Amino acid sequence: MKIVVDAMGGDYAPKNVIAGVIEAINEFDVNIVLTGIKDQIEAELKKFKYPANRIEIVHTDEVVGMDEPATTPIRKKRNSSISVGVRLLKEPGYDAFISAGNTGAVVAAATFNLGMLSGVDRPAIGLVIPTLKGVSILIDVGANADPKPEHLCQSGKMAKVYMNVLLGVQKPSVGLVNIGEEEGKGTGFHKEAYHLMSEKIDTFIGNVEPNEIYKGKSDCIICDGFVGNVILKVCEGLVESMGILIKREIKKSPIALLGAFLMKSKLGHIKKLADYSEYGGAPLLGVNGIVMISHGRSSPKAIKNAIRASIREVEHKILDVMAKEVSAS
Amino acid sequence: MKIVVDAMGGDYAPKNVIAGVIEAINEFDVNIVLTGIKDQIEAELKKFKYPANRIEIVHTDEVVGMDEPATTPIRKKRNSSISVGVRLLKEPGYDAFISAGNTGAVVAAATFNLGMLSGVDRPAIGLVIPTLKGVSILIDVGANADPKPEHLCQSGKMAKVYMNVLLGVQKPSVGLVNIGEEEGKGTGFHKEAYHLMSEKIDTFIGNVEPNEIYKGKSDCIICDGFVGNVILKVCEGLVESMGILIKREIKKSPIALLGAFLMKSKLGHIKKLADYSEYGGAPLLGVNGIVMISHGRSSPKAIKNAIRASIREVEHKILDVMAKEVSAS
Repeated sequence: MKIVVDAMGGDYAPKNVIAGVIEAINEFDVNIVLTGIKDQIEAELKKFKYPANRIEIVHTDEVVGMDEPATTPIRKKRNSSISVGVRLLKEPGYDAFISAGNTGAVVAAATFNLGMLSGVDRPAIGLVIPTLKGVSILIDVGANADPKPEHLCQSGKMAKVYMNVLLGVQKPSVGLVNIGEEEGKGTGFHKEAYHLMSEKIDTFIGNVEPNEIYKGKSDCIICDGFVGNVILKVCEGLVESMGILIKREIKKSPIALLGAFLMKSKLGHIKKLADYSEYGGAPLLGVNGIVMISHGRSSPKAIKNAIRASIREVEHKILDVMAKEVSAS
Repeated sequence: MKIVVDAMGGDYAPKNVIAGVIEAINEFDVNIVLTGIKDQIEAELKKFKYPANRIEIVHTDEVVGMDEPATTPIRKKRNSSISVGVRLLKEPGYDAFISAGNTGAVVAAATFNLGMLSGVDRPAIGLVIPTLKGVSILIDVGANADPKPEHLCQSGKMAKVYMNVLLGVQKPSVGLVNIGEEEGKGTGFHKEAYHLMSEKIDTFIGNVEPNEIYKGKSDCIICDGFVGNVILKVCEGLVESMGILIKREIKKSPIALLGAFLMKSKLGHIKKLADYSEYGGAPLLGVNGIVMISHGRSSPKAIKNAIRASIREVEHKILDVMAKEVSAS
């Protein structure tokens, strides 16, 4: 199996990407293809010992910046690490693409170059999040900020397949993020999405209020890309701010400081509840290729985990199953 | 000063409402008018000793249920505790109205009966939230799920006045909740709102990504009522879920249990970061009357705090200042 990784993607690239790739080839039976600026990649690779035949470099002389427009890899920088990486998936023998770079650019490049799965009109980014009951998938967290109701319905179908195939959940329940539990809540858009989903998804359980998300109210949590991105980021910010506040408060009291020390190992577990990097990457669903988007601040561990998640998608032939299920329903 | 309180509003009404009212008259120089079912109110009041001349009951024989449509108090139940309470504000000598009942119903009753402030087309609910820098106001958290860009701009102006007059912030900064920092991010709606706000609000600082909200990036955080309600509820759910997880994890280790015991007083402070009830109520801004909406699960302390917040709004003549500032800008 060959996974293509954007060596230039993310705030700490290529350093963290390469470190994660090395961890991955030590742990998994996988070969890696790195796209990006050859000199920089080689300089990082030199720091490690690894079987040279398992890492290949495809040089690209352009890099899409984190703040550049989403259309950059399809208009201005067609020889960027993102564009070249995505296009490799169209050739035989390349199984998946991972990038911690500019999310909008990855979505645009993948949509433009790979096209859509049968039965899907727009891509959506899923994010596996931990809940009190296990895990759920929140989709869309940012591919499509302004979708139509039918796109939400398609996201629901894709999420259901993902939770079933990749996470082994039987008959995954599907819920619509809304500001009230009863049917008829939210805007016209939400009412229409509710109606469509209740017609077309047999495990649709109705609206899920945002305070129920982390309680694990449904296996699949469906929303537009604007709202999903807000949920993702506000939780990230809240957890970070609480961490800072905890440290501030604790420093005021030696007793609390001792308490924190004793709790340390357990507090680590809790931080995971809103830690994106734990899960490595977020699958870009709907495009005709296995693409994984990692957080811009990905650690080496996050990159390794994203590689693991892609390997599992390849092994489970997620594209075939998803295309079949989504277009059938 | 006379504050009207909906005795029947909230999940624990009239019990928590009455207990909060009693706390308030003991602490503040205020008289209270309770609207609701007289027998039930009297039964609760009997539990306390208080100066009888400071609490008045206005009997209403209807109650709007928490799940009834927002139009209930203006169509079906015109003699409900919400409808009667709001209408009292139109008579001289009644200064503010507080309800922990059905939010949509309070918004509808207030908008219909009181009308809008000059320069404002739609109401918006503001919520004062604690941040790492102090406090900010998040607006709208649920009055108008589907506003137009100009309504967001009006919310920005109202929030600015609120932070200045009530919280003493000089030149409060105003930010738009968006999924990217740069201009041009988000949907067409967000681009238009950005444009309007940058033209009409002199302290507009641009987009605020949701992960920056709790860091205190701007004093006023502007969004539509759908997104604001999602932010409010997802944070509530995350904090609650983390609390449950902390307890679960701690129980597994006697050392962590001791640690938690030592940290207890400090952890309490941190919980406040997403605890709505700490701030008692959320002002309904834009209507021509002082209306405060409290959480359905309000504790007596939350009701007391909402009364305190209303008193301050009355003392600062917030309606006059807001009408003047908003229509002038």
